[in-house]
Amino acid sequence: MEILSHDHDEPGSLEEFRKFRERMNAEILGENNLVINRFFALDTRTYEAGALDVKTKELLGLVASLVLRCDDCVTYHLVRCAEEKVSRAEIFESLSVGLVVGGSIVIPHLRRAVDRWNELERKN
Amino acid sequence: MEILSHDHDEPGSLEEFRKFRERMNAEILGENNLVINRFFALDTRTYEAGALDVKTKELLGLVASLVLRCDDCVTYHLVRCAEEKVSRAEIFESLSVGLVVGGSIVIPHLRRAVDRWNELERKN
Amino acid sequence: MEILSHDHDEPGSLEEFRKFRERMNAEILGENNLVINRFFALDTRTYEAGALDVKTKELLGLVASLVLRCDDCVTYHLVRCAEEKVSRAEIFESLSVGLVVGGSIVIPHLRRAVDRWNELERKN
Amino acid sequence: MEILSHDHDEPGSLEEFRKFRERMNAEILGENNLVINRFFALDTRTYEAGALDVKTKELLGLVASLVLRCDDCVTYHLVRCAEEKVSRAEIFESLSVGLVVGGSIVIPHLRRAVDRWNELERKN
Amino acid sequence: MEILSHDHDEPGSLEEFRKFRERMNAEILGENNLVINRFFALDTRTYEAGALDVKTKELLGLVASLVLRCDDCVTYHLVRCAEEKVSRAEIFESLSVGLVVGGSIVIPHLRRAVDRWNELERKN
Amino acid sequence: MEILSHDHDEPGSLEEFRKFRERMNAEILGENNLVINRFFALDTRTYEAGALDVKTKELLGLVASLVLRCDDCVTYHLVRCAEEKVSRAEIFESLSVGLVVGGSIVIPHLRRAVDRWNELERKN
Repeated sequence: MEILSHDHDEPGSLEEFRKFRERMNAEILGENNLVINRFFALDTRTYEAGALDVKTKELLGLVASLVLRCDDCVTYHLVRCAEEKVSRAEIFESLSVGLVVGGSIVIPHLRRAVDRWNELERKN
Repeated sequence: MEILSHDHDEPGSLEEFRKFRERMNAEILGENNLVINRFFALDTRTYEAGALDVKTKELLGLVASLVLRCDDCVTYHLVRCAEEKVSRAEIFESLSVGLVVGGSIVIPHLRRAVDRWNELERKN
Repeated sequence: MEILSHDHDEPGSLEEFRKFRERMNAEILGENNLVINRFFALDTRTYEAGALDVKTKELLGLVASLVLRCDDCVTYHLVRCAEEKVSRAEIFESLSVGLVVGGSIVIPHLRRAVDRWNELERKN
Repeated sequence: MEILSHDHDEPGSLEEFRKFRERMNAEILGENNLVINRFFALDTRTYEAGALDVKTKELLGLVASLVLRCDDCVTYHLVRCAEEKVSRAEIFESLSVGLVVGGSIVIPHLRRAVDRWNELERKN
Repeated sequence: MEILSHDHDEPGSLEEFRKFRERMNAEILGENNLVINRFFALDTRTYEAGALDVKTKELLGLVASLVLRCDDCVTYHLVRCAEEKVSRAEIFESLSVGLVVGGSIVIPHLRRAVDRWNELERKN
Repeated sequence: MEILSHDHDEPGSLEEFRKFRERMNAEILGENNLVINRFFALDTRTYEAGALDVKTKELLGLVASLVLRCDDCVTYHLVRCAEEKVSRAEIFESLSVGLVVGGSIVIPHLRRAVDRWNELERKN
């Protein structure tokens, strides 16, 4: 098991996140647990366009992840938001909603979210 | 203190909610605690139009409230969504995001949210 | 909207819970939101026998609901546990795990859970 | 089961809360589940004077209960704070810490906490 | 303070977890804070056989830890489950209950739990 | 992005925490999002002396952070408590309140909190 970086301070790189996520998703789905596999399929379908467009749904996922304080989920939705061409101002306004709803306990996750978004902007 | 209705089953009426909310907000703000009063002002400002429009911000507040499982907060944002002319399909899609992010523990709150939305539609 | 009883003190009756749950589930599923309907189907399947028997899975659902402090979810799993002939001692030991994992914040939900279990025993 | 009042709007009376709490605590302790009974004893001891005085410990319990959004736990600690002669200004400042840490999701619980505190002041 | 590995991606090794856990438990218990020490003793006793067997109680602890999203607690119960000869299929079914109850926010913790279980299987 | 240490086991150093916190706060505030910047200002003001002294307010922030299980927030308040000359016994009693309110799920955060406090004592 490799030495990676730390969540209390700076998050690991996006590339590390992507590789671990892909490897473990493959292992989990390969187990063929029906409930888990259906949940994963449903999770993907949740963010497809319908009455709301994809961008709005990704912002909903982002803010839900922020108030529940899950850095990995925030990272995932930030990556998707970047792909959907969400602007920096839209990201900050979404994060501001999560901050006010969730309170100061959200701030460490906000720091890592902004660091992550900066990394995504540098890549694009 | 009056007898009101019950959150395990059916939520109280919107009118009861509105009256208690208004009375207590007035009492709380009248206390002149600087931190609390500034927080209330900031909370209002959070949902004003900016890079995102008001409707999108209310949907963000709705989903954040649902995954954090606060019935009163869900009610508040549903009322605002109705004022902003959010459609029934948009509400259900937003709730579906909250359900998948937050899991089956969200279901009782989803029931009360839908009951509340129906009450709002009957009123309008 | 009828006057029901109160969650701060005593929970509403099982019959009230059952009726509201059934009515709202029908309304929600009737909306035909694909994600929500699949989630409900998956939720049912989660507790079917597999590597673990139904009783063990219901106890897992009970303790998960208790530590997440959802009275309605606790009620639902208590009803199912009664149907699966879980003993009073098994219920109390399961609740004790939830209490120690979740802390004193769980105690009000423990009170309502025990009140509910007593109601179920009186019915059977 | 009696008709009591509602947590979405106004909390039930202190007397109702006290009676249900006492009745259920007696039932739970009478079950003689060792883990549960020791937890209850430990919970009581937690708030006894030591390096910190009782008043400070009750304020810690109050704010912890508020950010975890448990109305019954908030009520319990407010009752104890009233017994320990905590001032109204001290209560509001403690609640303001909980509000900022926990965010706007705390507001409905703040409303009920202030309503409860007012009821305690009227009684004394 | 040594450089260890990272929770956003891959969890640190079991050996690192075990050493830090043991060292800190010794430091904490050595402080002789009565409440803390009694809590630790109670925590151990919670998982002893009674009306439920040890294996079932460890699965309850595992799922409670998963829905509360505590990686260290999940790791601890996975280690104990391995000692109690819980099968891979039983682990996955337990995790599936936690996933459905807790929602997609649980997925990153599910990934780390499966990675940890694989590490435990390789060791045995 | 540098390799830092790990939250599952030992937290990163205080110096790493401080540097990341300062850098990201500057970036966030530099964005000039009105809601976020006012929230940060309000957060600072929350802990100023008023009806309660600074030390009591920092202990409230510490316990709120512990029960919400945010290591970074715990670290921040421990640093402030050290500056306010809170004693080791007062810290342990405050942590014991958080442990009993929040349950065994808090234990991994308690371990890291004590490790952090020891680091602070060694520095002073």
